Amino acid sequence: MTDLTDSTTDDNLDGAYAHAEEIAGGRLIRTQGVTAPAGFRAAGIRAGIKVNGNADLALVLNEGPELAAAGVFTTNKVKAAPVLWSQQVLSSGALRAVILNSGGANACTGPGGFQDTHATAEALADALSNWGTETGAGEIAVCSTGLIGDRLPMDKVLAGVGEIVHELAGGISGGTDAAHAIMTTDTVPKQAALHHAGNWNVGGMAKGAGMLAPALATMLCVLTTDVVATPEQLDRALRHATRKTFDRLDIDGATSTNDTVLLLASGASGVSPAQDELDAAVLAVCDSLADQMMADAEGVTKRVTVTVRGAASEDDALIGARTVARDSLVKTALFGSDPNWGRVLAAIGIAPIELDPNTITVMFNGRPVCIGGVGAPGAREVDLSGIDISLDIDLGLGDAEVSIRTTDLSHAYVEENSAYSS
Amino acid sequence: MTDLTDSTTDDNLDGAYAHAEEIAGGRLIRTQGVTAPAGFRAAGIRAGIKVNGNADLALVLNEGPELAAAGVFTTNKVKAAPVLWSQQVLSSGALRAVILNSGGANACTGPGGFQDTHATAEALADALSNWGTETGAGEIAVCSTGLIGDRLPMDKVLAGVGEIVHELAGGISGGTDAAHAIMTTDTVPKQAALHHAGNWNVGGMAKGAGMLAPALATMLCVLTTDVVATPEQLDRALRHATRKTFDRLDIDGATSTNDTVLLLASGASGVSPAQDELDAAVLAVCDSLADQMMADAEGVTKRVTVTVRGAASEDDALIGARTVARDSLVKTALFGSDPNWGRVLAAIGIAPIELDPNTITVMFNGRPVCIGGVGAPGAREVDLSGIDISLDIDLGLGDAEVSIRTTDLSHAYVEENSAYSS
Repeated sequence: MTDLTDSTTDDNLDGAYAHAEEIAGGRLIRTQGVTAPAGFRAAGIRAGIKVNGNADLALVLNEGPELAAAGVFTTNKVKAAPVLWSQQVLSSGALRAVILNSGGANACTGPGGFQDTHATAEALADALSNWGTETGAGEIAVCSTGLIGDRLPMDKVLAGVGEIVHELAGGISGGTDAAHAIMTTDTVPKQAALHHAGNWNVGGMAKGAGMLAPALATMLCVLTTDVVATPEQLDRALRHATRKTFDRLDIDGATSTNDTVLLLASGASGVSPAQDELDAAVLAVCDSLADQMMADAEGVTKRVTVTVRGAASEDDALIGARTVARDSLVKTALFGSDPNWGRVLAAIGIAPIELDPNTITVMFNGRPVCIGGVGAPGAREVDLSGIDISLDIDLGLGDAEVSIRTTDLSHAYVEENSAYSS
Repeated sequence: MTDLTDSTTDDNLDGAYAHAEEIAGGRLIRTQGVTAPAGFRAAGIRAGIKVNGNADLALVLNEGPELAAAGVFTTNKVKAAPVLWSQQVLSSGALRAVILNSGGANACTGPGGFQDTHATAEALADALSNWGTETGAGEIAVCSTGLIGDRLPMDKVLAGVGEIVHELAGGISGGTDAAHAIMTTDTVPKQAALHHAGNWNVGGMAKGAGMLAPALATMLCVLTTDVVATPEQLDRALRHATRKTFDRLDIDGATSTNDTVLLLASGASGVSPAQDELDAAVLAVCDSLADQMMADAEGVTKRVTVTVRGAASEDDALIGARTVARDSLVKTALFGSDPNWGRVLAAIGIAPIELDPNTITVMFNGRPVCIGGVGAPGAREVDLSGIDISLDIDLGLGDAEVSIRTTDLSHAYVEENSAYSS
């Protein structure tokens, strides 16, 4: 993971990652997504759910021969209707399709909202069956993103569902259309595909920034692969990847009611890679998507990697890094390109972890600013004017290390989030 | 406490609270501070510690006959030198004086910084002894506030200590001078004094905003009283008060390395009030100071009270209210006067407390916006354009209730905190 992060930190913030790189036994390409693996089609259309008329309905179809699937969902106790529905559907370990809408979260909408989700799945099952792919509503996951608390315009959703099956396409276009249709405050679509040397593939698309704790906007992510794998193997690969990527992307500490990450396997390659190979490939795709989400987070002017090393345990390293990554005083200082390491010490000091103030070393962009809890010479002169900032905190206690991706706290963040629903 | 809060929420944000109010068996006045009780003198001077030349050194002297004292300190594991010193000194349960400087936190300054604190106390003990009040360094608490990580200009501090004892004054002027000299990003001094009908008094001054979890800037607070009380009685009154006031003031979730609240009793009134009376009086003064700190918090454009009621326990109510009060998406929405209750649901949903999404009711300024986890009619039209906003969340589970004072997240907050050390 470190390699991937390092190789991308020199990119511009435009998010247009076109280049390929060698990783996890394959080639990672950032302009291909869910239709890169064999056996998948996708589409994205304008259904009129968004008032601004942008694309707002996406469909990912698994044409098989297998339908194995796994999912990871928000830890928020307030879960949107589509999350409750998709969790239920996934208990079978199989998915034929995922229908995703932007323009409305369908969260905090009560029993009526849940019925809307159910009706969407039923309508898609009918449309797919009429189109020639026999499907039941219980094989369809539903994802929604947008404002919490409003019911969806179901006339438009259902009309869109009837239309979108006719737009399904393989190749690059289908996946790219779908990636566009799930965007809300995103400024660019996020896609990644890994073509493994062993003739199998993993692809993915995502929107928003956040998962377990992190979520500015809802994070939705659909991953596809053409390997032959059981739901249990997919689940292991997915949890291994999300734990190290989306769960370590923390823009503002908020967690959406709708966060969903799904992994669908078609088996179309006929290849059954070793679990470790599958883990690595799914991790590489998720890591690229997480990196793209950080780069496109609301109001970002700095891409920040907070690393806590020398911790007594991985949990301590994670909690410590997350605490610093969420600290408003650290984040505003970084917005101001201010190497205010005192705020870093104050932030790590409130983390509920084992630490000794006298053994802490802090580095900005590789330059020590605090050694043994005391300021280093020249600490106030470290240059943080660039887009990428690495903040390393060595607790000097053990061997555990965790990195969290975050951003600064900028005027643009305040602006964007103070005017969202109005 | 509710009464006091209610009676002050109509004030302007200018912080000039001149009016008196009846509370806790006495009269609370917001233009008097640490020298309101008998037996205290105070002073504030320009010692040249701040580069801008503003007042930066304050002294509070207890002339007795008694010297009982108690203190509450930051929970941050990274503690500034003056905190380590004052904690040690207070183990005796007695304080003759408190010397406070702004213009530098003396935190993360290593053994040299601790020696600076010690030298300050020694110098003040000498100066007070020469001035006629025999004092040892072990009777002197030291408080510092300002940038973390830099050593103090000790030539100026020590010269100032020699000078300030000659400026000691009783009456309103001494306390007010001291309250000015501890300000950093504060725009107004914060004072409060309660004149109890039983002929005893409690006074206090504070700067910053924060204590247990809360701290934009360091919070320093010195409370004085002329009652006759043991250190144990003072400690109980102080902890009772801080738990309900400063610990429930949460501007941005950060906790300073330097937060200190001290309570000194001179015994000069000759009165020994009942513990409950003392508790109530100290609470009233702390509540007023906390209210003044909220009103003057960095970048505040809204004064927000987040109340969680109907919780299964007081801990749950506290954690729930704190989680919502810290949520960046809720705070930016409030800055935009946006009644975005969906963000409130999403925020409370990540609090590690007992809750049922279907029994949650949310009110803005007394108007229901979400009932039973679902939006109420007209929820998006609630007017939040005023300065004061009450956000009430009823979990519908039990009887526990806690209120947290917080603010919005504004452009001014970002501006002030992105440029602080440079």
